[in-house]
Amino acid sequence: MIEDKNQQRTQLSDLGEFGLIDHLTKNFKIKQSSTVKGIGDDAAVLNFEDQKVVVTTDLLVEGVHFDLSYVPLKHLGYKAVVVNLSDVYAMNAKATQVTVSIAVSNRFPLEALEDLYAGIETAAKIYDIDVVGGDTTSSNTGLLISVTALGALSEDDVVYRNGAKPNDLLVVTGDVGAAYMGLQVLEREKEVYKVNPNNQPDLEPYTYIVERQLKPEARKDIKELLKGLDVKPTSMIDVSDGLSSEIIHLCKQSDVGCDLYENKLPLDPQVISVCEEFNIDSTTVALNGGEDYELLFTISQEDFMKIKGNPNFSIIGFMKESKEGMHLVTRADTRIPIKAQGWKNFND
Amino acid sequence: MIEDKNQQRTQLSDLGEFGLIDHLTKNFKIKQSSTVKGIGDDAAVLNFEDQKVVVTTDLLVEGVHFDLSYVPLKHLGYKAVVVNLSDVYAMNAKATQVTVSIAVSNRFPLEALEDLYAGIETAAKIYDIDVVGGDTTSSNTGLLISVTALGALSEDDVVYRNGAKPNDLLVVTGDVGAAYMGLQVLEREKEVYKVNPNNQPDLEPYTYIVERQLKPEARKDIKELLKGLDVKPTSMIDVSDGLSSEIIHLCKQSDVGCDLYENKLPLDPQVISVCEEFNIDSTTVALNGGEDYELLFTISQEDFMKIKGNPNFSIIGFMKESKEGMHLVTRADTRIPIKAQGWKNFND
Repeated sequence: MIEDKNQQRTQLSDLGEFGLIDHLTKNFKIKQSSTVKGIGDDAAVLNFEDQKVVVTTDLLVEGVHFDLSYVPLKHLGYKAVVVNLSDVYAMNAKATQVTVSIAVSNRFPLEALEDLYAGIETAAKIYDIDVVGGDTTSSNTGLLISVTALGALSEDDVVYRNGAKPNDLLVVTGDVGAAYMGLQVLEREKEVYKVNPNNQPDLEPYTYIVERQLKPEARKDIKELLKGLDVKPTSMIDVSDGLSSEIIHLCKQSDVGCDLYENKLPLDPQVISVCEEFNIDSTTVALNGGEDYELLFTISQEDFMKIKGNPNFSIIGFMKESKEGMHLVTRADTRIPIKAQGWKNFND
Repeated sequence: MIEDKNQQRTQLSDLGEFGLIDHLTKNFKIKQSSTVKGIGDDAAVLNFEDQKVVVTTDLLVEGVHFDLSYVPLKHLGYKAVVVNLSDVYAMNAKATQVTVSIAVSNRFPLEALEDLYAGIETAAKIYDIDVVGGDTTSSNTGLLISVTALGALSEDDVVYRNGAKPNDLLVVTGDVGAAYMGLQVLEREKEVYKVNPNNQPDLEPYTYIVERQLKPEARKDIKELLKGLDVKPTSMIDVSDGLSSEIIHLCKQSDVGCDLYENKLPLDPQVISVCEEFNIDSTTVALNGGEDYELLFTISQEDFMKIKGNPNFSIIGFMKESKEGMHLVTRADTRIPIKAQGWKNFND
């Protein structure tokens, strides 16, 4: 919301498509041994030896998934990569490569795309992955980013959504609801800015939740963490659309039911206080907020002692027979059926 | 350009995102042995055993790459897959899987997306590949399709762009320039239609070139064909941006020059006659038209007898030392430097 009046502006048409790709990716280094050939041919060539390969893809669309009035392009590039890696980690795989395609209107100068790619490069560094391909093209309107992520794992390590059994424990990493409340704060500040553009937003009290929204992290660490504890989840999914929605996916695909305990939901203190400030129910936010990019998984009861008390994990419920349905057990000990809300893009 | 007044229209919001993906992909069958798990989890799981993997991605944007006033959605879905497979074949790999993501505005009814996916499904059937993932989201304006294609090959089979040597022969499959002239015909008919919407276009004399534009095919057959002839190209690329542009890529990446013979350029008779009709130079069209999705490759002179006279291939020139540059040798035996024109999207 703070404009730099001295921005350099280089027209994209000054470079042309090939010049643009070359320019944006020239600093990208290949680090993964599985990358035989990265950007620069008709396709990348990868060597996974006897490992299995996972592949996942996501689109981020301006005006639907992000609002450039408060999302810095560097953060956007970072986030576009991270949300895809999260899906790779949800298979219990190691992320290895991404391809990144963008469609962008002429209103963006080259410097804006450089920021976007700086974020992509930072994510690639931090998550130790290679950017091995992509496409850049013009669009008639806004910005769109399409990322495909690849990962590798040994066959024994694969964790699907469909392996949960009755009595398995339901576990979530980190905390939930923060990204959604970060979005509420940013949306509010945007409205304030519209009325008074000289008003500098004070985001200090909201640092954690704003960062969770603008610069989420994927749980690269969980695979190793669980391996070290000798725990293999029976099912797993990442929390992108909201906890409720993901629980429903696990239950439906595993053909089980579930009891989820409201008092076990991991909420950051900042989420609780901002929920009070906004007069929003924090449980609703935890269940339906989404964009947490935490991992939700189930483990056998036998593994309970291995993760009990571990600060990375919260045991939030347990699985039941399918016919018993999916319920939230509230603090008042009432049982409410779990419904997905998620991101209903097409209702916008 | 012919509107069906009785179209059924189902709003996308009636299904929601998950319902939409399920609905659109419910008929997709898994056929590749390398697909362990397709659509339905956080990521697809693939098993390439000891094969190398190639991955490539392309974006198609409404108003930039296609015009829905004359491109049927079914053809568009087909083409979106095929243009990516073309890149896989250009590595001398076998195409195995694709992911397909779409961003679409609410102005499209469900039936339109069903047509698009019918085209994707047809391409998957014909090219024997699996659709293993994707994403659907709303967009504020038009339609955008992002496809990532995967392929497999043994290490010995990989053909890069950078292996051409001086004296190698330059070979192209099929013929070139037809897709571009097909586009000219469709653009002209669109203008006629704008003036008189009752005027039914007669595309009969343009069948071949219009089909090359609307429903291009990728050269799945070339890998086996060359293997049967015991020929391994020294370098290869697919012709998407235009022959000139692709020749320049091969030369630059291989550090060689090239003489290209105007009288050897393979042109379909329909292209020649429509070029006359439009008063366009057919050589310019052959060199800069693009969207041919043929394969351009170089072979050692030793392999000359193996492909000489083969109707699938035209020997159009030969490679030289880098310092001799890249030239078109005209029918009048003058030498003109080769320049790329290609698709300059950002200049539009």
